[in-house]
Amino acid sequence: MVLTLVGLGLNDERDVSIRGLEAIRAADILYLENYTATLNVDTNRLERFFEKPIILADRDFVEGSAEAMLEAAKTKRVACLVVGDPFCATTHSDLYLRARDKGVTVKVIHNASIMSAVAACGLQLYRFGETVSIPFFDGGWKPVSFYEKIQKNRENNMHTLCLLDIKVKEQTVENLMKGNNIFEPPRFMTVNTAIRQLFEAAEMQGDEGVASILAFGLARVGADDQAIVSGPLQELLNADLGGPLHSLVLCAPELHEIEQKFVSLYSARNSVHTE
Amino acid sequence: MVLTLVGLGLNDERDVSIRGLEAIRAADILYLENYTATLNVDTNRLERFFEKPIILADRDFVEGSAEAMLEAAKTKRVACLVVGDPFCATTHSDLYLRARDKGVTVKVIHNASIMSAVAACGLQLYRFGETVSIPFFDGGWKPVSFYEKIQKNRENNMHTLCLLDIKVKEQTVENLMKGNNIFEPPRFMTVNTAIRQLFEAAEMQGDEGVASILAFGLARVGADDQAIVSGPLQELLNADLGGPLHSLVLCAPELHEIEQKFVSLYSARNSVHTE
Repeated sequence: MVLTLVGLGLNDERDVSIRGLEAIRAADILYLENYTATLNVDTNRLERFFEKPIILADRDFVEGSAEAMLEAAKTKRVACLVVGDPFCATTHSDLYLRARDKGVTVKVIHNASIMSAVAACGLQLYRFGETVSIPFFDGGWKPVSFYEKIQKNRENNMHTLCLLDIKVKEQTVENLMKGNNIFEPPRFMTVNTAIRQLFEAAEMQGDEGVASILAFGLARVGADDQAIVSGPLQELLNADLGGPLHSLVLCAPELHEIEQKFVSLYSARNSVHTE
Repeated sequence: MVLTLVGLGLNDERDVSIRGLEAIRAADILYLENYTATLNVDTNRLERFFEKPIILADRDFVEGSAEAMLEAAKTKRVACLVVGDPFCATTHSDLYLRARDKGVTVKVIHNASIMSAVAACGLQLYRFGETVSIPFFDGGWKPVSFYEKIQKNRENNMHTLCLLDIKVKEQTVENLMKGNNIFEPPRFMTVNTAIRQLFEAAEMQGDEGVASILAFGLARVGADDQAIVSGPLQELLNADLGGPLHSLVLCAPELHEIEQKFVSLYSARNSVHTE
């Protein structure tokens, strides 16, 4: 029949669109992809709101065993809920192609993504260059390819959106080796950790002056308790933005007049702004 | 009281979120900003769906006379509907600042924007560079600053989203001079016109080889009759994508494997894809 990828937006069950809700109500089977991003509400609340049981699709599922979902979509109406917009994560582009390959009709219901909602900080979206992902440094494992992209964007006078790592359903090496089905609590990178790692990466490159780069820290964009704070990285290093999800934006070297006003509006020196 | 900027998403009244609909239902006064973008439905249909009269806010209003709206928001609940996401157009950042300056509480309800939904073509969103706007060439008035940005993105191996001009509530010079309140029918730039102008701009720069750049033409993204077609610009020049709104994406010189598959999937040679 059909596979509908339904964007859930950024925060809670009320961010789904009417179009999305109609697809959910009409679905025979409902999946939730919950490892590339996460809402601020738990699955039970979504199930109550949608009046339907939800099957959780974690990393193993989406990358390895989505076959069952695609098979079901051949004869049933399947809706797959995706935090943000369905196409903003590579995983779902791949899923789309696999569905099409199988002759399954795929519909996509768009929604807000952090990739566009980040403009809430007041920086103009059209001036953003390549988006980077900052992964958790883990002991000696310190991949810093994101740093080169940030430099390239700054050379081109563009802003950089930094998406911060989340770890959901991770296992310790020990549990993995022993085959224990035990998972670590989810971890969400804060703006503070991201800046610390950015400083580490800059040091490795012998790059000085990084501490004075103007930036915005954003948390829970679009939620009632959204927090946005701006300032030089050195100042944001200790800013408290509260719970997940956090994002970091590095400003282009030159700002437009309106952008400068937003920097002042959200200045860390005026304490964290919440609305 | 409060001004709520409500993103309407991309297509029709069913793209609003539950959160957005709640704000609309609770509003004392409802405005619709309808000149930076447009939905595929008319205002009457929105009024019937929202069960409320809508005041149209055109360019004059938003840029010049938004004072009335901001004044009203001091004592009433005002909702301002915005096509796409409220922060994806500079106009609304400015409005946001003006409201804050006046001490008005502003809430923002995010939604899908073409700036993120463009990923529906299968190109990876994080690989997009600066976004450009292509304005209608008008006789001798041929601003081509967009072309330089496209070149810069390509040099950096990034994709370019080209937003295409729309003209709503424009007056002829004659009517403007005579003070006649007569407006021209709305005009929406097609992918075809955009490519013709791109070729003109390339010629002015003495830039050859532009015709072979791989691109995607998109129309009515997220609607049931969405159209996406890919191919070298020379081939897309005559592709028929149907009614507005159109967008054009120029691919980075190098594509990832999944991106290449989407180029094949939507190839103009396989005729226009509609779903």
